[in-house]
Amino acid sequence: MDAHPRPPGRGLFVAFEGGEGTGKSTQARLLFDWLGLHELPARITHEPGGTPPGARIRALLLDPATGDLAPRAEALLYAADRAHHVHAVVRPALEAGEVVLTDRYVDSSLAYQGAGRTLDLDEVRRISAWATGGLLPHLTVLLDLPPEAGLARALGRAAADRLESESLEFHQRVRATFRALAAADPGRYLVLDAERPAGEIAAAVRERVGALLPGRVA
Amino acid sequence: MDAHPRPPGRGLFVAFEGGEGTGKSTQARLLFDWLGLHELPARITHEPGGTPPGARIRALLLDPATGDLAPRAEALLYAADRAHHVHAVVRPALEAGEVVLTDRYVDSSLAYQGAGRTLDLDEVRRISAWATGGLLPHLTVLLDLPPEAGLARALGRAAADRLESESLEFHQRVRATFRALAAADPGRYLVLDAERPAGEIAAAVRERVGALLPGRVA
Repeated sequence: MDAHPRPPGRGLFVAFEGGEGTGKSTQARLLFDWLGLHELPARITHEPGGTPPGARIRALLLDPATGDLAPRAEALLYAADRAHHVHAVVRPALEAGEVVLTDRYVDSSLAYQGAGRTLDLDEVRRISAWATGGLLPHLTVLLDLPPEAGLARALGRAAADRLESESLEFHQRVRATFRALAAADPGRYLVLDAERPAGEIAAAVRERVGALLPGRVA
Repeated sequence: MDAHPRPPGRGLFVAFEGGEGTGKSTQARLLFDWLGLHELPARITHEPGGTPPGARIRALLLDPATGDLAPRAEALLYAADRAHHVHAVVRPALEAGEVVLTDRYVDSSLAYQGAGRTLDLDEVRRISAWATGGLLPHLTVLLDLPPEAGLARALGRAAADRLESESLEFHQRVRATFRALAAADPGRYLVLDAERPAGEIAAAVRERVGALLPGRVA
């Protein structure tokens, strides 16, 4: 694991990132099952809402009754969810030697808030770094998809032409931010075309993760 | 109002700070009533929980069912509450020319989190500054009281000797931090001995606030 700058304990930390409908949770589950076949201790988790207090924060973020939240308040709530998630779930599991798979992490905050263009991205990054104590994934799998396709999948729609253009533009900025984050730190990312069949994607993920677990998987 | 570095709009922003049982809400109410006599538009608010989403954040912070929160998650939740409070209540009122009286603000986060000694105070200050967009009170009234007396008041106890020593030490650190913040920026603070009669304290507050509202109060 020499290629990974901050291995905390003996575990391996893998984040799945990408827009709506890119198959993050499917791929996390497929990887989890494969790790199980190899009897490697692993867990799947997610943000926001991966802990009991986090679920309450998530409810507050998503409940229409909350009304409009100040953009900075929203960013701080996501950071609070992440701080507790890392403290209560991710770090203990890594310290116990587990492979931790998270559906969304820091990059989602950067991509969505960057796309919203209301907040300074460096400040959001700094707050996330403080929230996590600087914990970064050993590997981030970015499932990349044109937003037309992803939104159509996520909404169960057959065609993308019913999406309003403003929403589409927003999701195009989300995608561009994800890709820019990956391009800036290629050693830590695996960028995959999410239009490929799920089985092919899963094989590519297994190959990369297997290389990070030398001697522990076939 | 030349002495005040950042007057946002035409309003005046006054924070009441101090430990438990120091009379913050009583003094805010007495000042509010006096401003009303002079027909000055004013409002009383508080942190945490001064807005509807803030009330939900406050409930999450105080509900025993939440269980232990990571210290950074807790700090970020207070900051989220503050960000929304400033955005939805304090700034609009100041821009409308009101006198805004808040029961607790940034200093409470610094004092309690500094006293807890688990977090870096400069980082908590930086996050609060981001949450508020740098908005500081024109005047902070610090109601200063030995914690033995304040806790006895707050708990409705006649004597302080029933307080456990660890708790007392914590509150002594809270008090010391409040005093240090005031000492570092004396032009922006009014430090008052909270053991004095409430009427005397209120008169001292009126005198100082009156000086900040030239020509608008007798």
